[in-house]
Amino acid sequence: MGTFCSIILYPKSYILNSYAMDPVEYHRKLRGKIEIISRAKIETREDLSLAYTPGVAKACEAIVADMGQVYELTRKSNMVAVVTDGSAVLGLGNIGPLASLPVMEGKCALFKEFAGVDAFPIALATQDTEEIIKTIVNISPIFGGINLEDISAPRCFEIERRLAELLDIPVFHDDQHGTAIIVLAGLINALKVADKKLSEISIVVNGAGAAGTALTNLLVEAGAKNLIVLDSKGIIFDGRAGMDKEKNGLAKKTNHGKRTGGLTEAMVGADVFIGVSRPNLVTAEMIKSMNSKSIIFAMANPVPEVMPDIALAAGALVVATGRSDYPNQVNNVLVFPGIFRGLLDGRIRNVTTKMKLAAAKALSGLISNPTSTNILPSPLDREVAKAVARAVQEACL
Amino acid sequence: MGTFCSIILYPKSYILNSYAMDPVEYHRKLRGKIEIISRAKIETREDLSLAYTPGVAKACEAIVADMGQVYELTRKSNMVAVVTDGSAVLGLGNIGPLASLPVMEGKCALFKEFAGVDAFPIALATQDTEEIIKTIVNISPIFGGINLEDISAPRCFEIERRLAELLDIPVFHDDQHGTAIIVLAGLINALKVADKKLSEISIVVNGAGAAGTALTNLLVEAGAKNLIVLDSKGIIFDGRAGMDKEKNGLAKKTNHGKRTGGLTEAMVGADVFIGVSRPNLVTAEMIKSMNSKSIIFAMANPVPEVMPDIALAAGALVVATGRSDYPNQVNNVLVFPGIFRGLLDGRIRNVTTKMKLAAAKALSGLISNPTSTNILPSPLDREVAKAVARAVQEACL
Repeated sequence: MGTFCSIILYPKSYILNSYAMDPVEYHRKLRGKIEIISRAKIETREDLSLAYTPGVAKACEAIVADMGQVYELTRKSNMVAVVTDGSAVLGLGNIGPLASLPVMEGKCALFKEFAGVDAFPIALATQDTEEIIKTIVNISPIFGGINLEDISAPRCFEIERRLAELLDIPVFHDDQHGTAIIVLAGLINALKVADKKLSEISIVVNGAGAAGTALTNLLVEAGAKNLIVLDSKGIIFDGRAGMDKEKNGLAKKTNHGKRTGGLTEAMVGADVFIGVSRPNLVTAEMIKSMNSKSIIFAMANPVPEVMPDIALAAGALVVATGRSDYPNQVNNVLVFPGIFRGLLDGRIRNVTTKMKLAAAKALSGLISNPTSTNILPSPLDREVAKAVARAVQEACL
Repeated sequence: MGTFCSIILYPKSYILNSYAMDPVEYHRKLRGKIEIISRAKIETREDLSLAYTPGVAKACEAIVADMGQVYELTRKSNMVAVVTDGSAVLGLGNIGPLASLPVMEGKCALFKEFAGVDAFPIALATQDTEEIIKTIVNISPIFGGINLEDISAPRCFEIERRLAELLDIPVFHDDQHGTAIIVLAGLINALKVADKKLSEISIVVNGAGAAGTALTNLLVEAGAKNLIVLDSKGIIFDGRAGMDKEKNGLAKKTNHGKRTGGLTEAMVGADVFIGVSRPNLVTAEMIKSMNSKSIIFAMANPVPEVMPDIALAAGALVVATGRSDYPNQVNNVLVFPGIFRGLLDGRIRNVTTKMKLAAAKALSGLISNPTSTNILPSPLDREVAKAVARAVQEACL
């Protein structure tokens, strides 16, 4: 979520029209998309003395004697924190913690619905990197995993890295890795449709925030050799002035041809366009300048970098977006529930590249005969999370 | 909970014997006493686009436009954090955050069962006062109230005071005020049985931690004029060396007769003994030295300051303990669910003395004809929380 750091340029009525119900009224009616229930029945004094005092002291003492028992005797083994600082929420930008809560609650609801994971929304009243890190460490004891969400780049990189070192539970920034995994999964199948090889194609990644950086890194790990990444200043190249640590890292592993310029220049001769940027940046002319059987992942949300009909008319073979009203929806909900199901069940401490690659492969494998309009499973498919969870656990063996 | 800072002197088997089921196995079978569920049904693409992206953005925008809408559009209006640092858990002492989790989860389960409040356990990996305050402020946006729990004195006083200033949601340290309210409620009815008046009696409070301090303060506010408080060094008096701010405060409002000495000296001529201290400190001789128709609240848990049969044989008229296997159980579960139900429903920012007095009065009023063995409602009575909630809200008007 919030994945693509896009600025919303669509008119206010654009999205609302497509709902049977007004989303604000939907939220008002629900009064919260999550709820905490008691797993302990409290009907008798016996119940009370087992769940609470004095019996509960015995469970405490068992954990004092063996800290690992906290996974057996409390909810920690199934509990994930969905943590944001509200700095990069959806395409809405830096709306702060209170306004970010509907997104965080939504994510928690999906965690439960798709993977049985208990997830609790934590929206932080700070955007200071050190305070964020310290706060998450301080509240970590009840959690079996941390899902970072909608924290703006480049702070998100440092926060994730440091937390992974400090905590003994897995940390996963979904905007980075969830997006990277689902893009790789979709691309594997799109390349089957185009009959092209990842190691041979040329890929343009437009956007070098959390998602663009992570997906570029994962594509390289998966075997892609020829990538060009662009940020708001144009093509990233080694030695370009004013780049931070992450962008210098991208520059080293991409654009070996030392190309410069903007999106128009980058698109010439490309096989794949991956947009995690802004609406309507890609023109028909740009698509026509790509290689034949081109693949377009236009994931700015809710209005993509190019609308599917325009891209197809300009000669693209496969077009994917973040939208549910077109084929090939690229949606992180296919990833994060299964990732955490696997991490929790395997009691896995660190998320590795091998796990991310395995998750992408498992996801793509769920489509037995990919076509240009069917490269990814439905976000509603309950089997997806199980397959992803299995892949994560197997990759840990 | 953890209320009485008592040191457990009982043999290991003492409590276990009274369960039909081993409490550790009970916890192992449950694997957590709370669970987070989705209130949003996610079956169709329409569901997904209302609860999550893109529809959720409309709820975020509504909160950006009016921050108060967060109470309407998210779970904040019903969500309480149960926060501990694991420093004073039950009678177990400083067992740290992981081992405290069964208690915090138990409390959260009771919040839901007795008052429909969603409560989430936060066990902090820090015991530094400033870090605790900062962490709670940082995670506060999702919460409509903060229940502090099992944080040792005197840090608990400062933490509660500062948070009440910093946050725009109510903060309530149950070990202090939950205990104070239930003690006052029980005492009102015990005094009816003894036909004595609060303003005329002499009260001994043994223990000057979180509970002893708060209940002394509340008894004074309720009209008690003659109290003696003891800590581990004996009777507290104005000018005694080495006392902190809270104890100096107690010294100013109690012991006007400037008595000194220990518990034996304090008990002579007292009408009421309130123990929030340690097992088996009170002897039959001490009780015999009290006034006639004496009242004993021996709340060290699970072994009281004096066992009821000993106290009654020595001449006490009313004996209350924290135990469920004797009459007159003094249990905070009669207080905290209703307090927060009232605070949340009334969107009340600060807990006032008036509310605490009203809650105690409402609780005592639930027993229409108090007797020596019936001064408080059953902890299982589902009507209690409603009465307390109503009293809190009315006291706010």
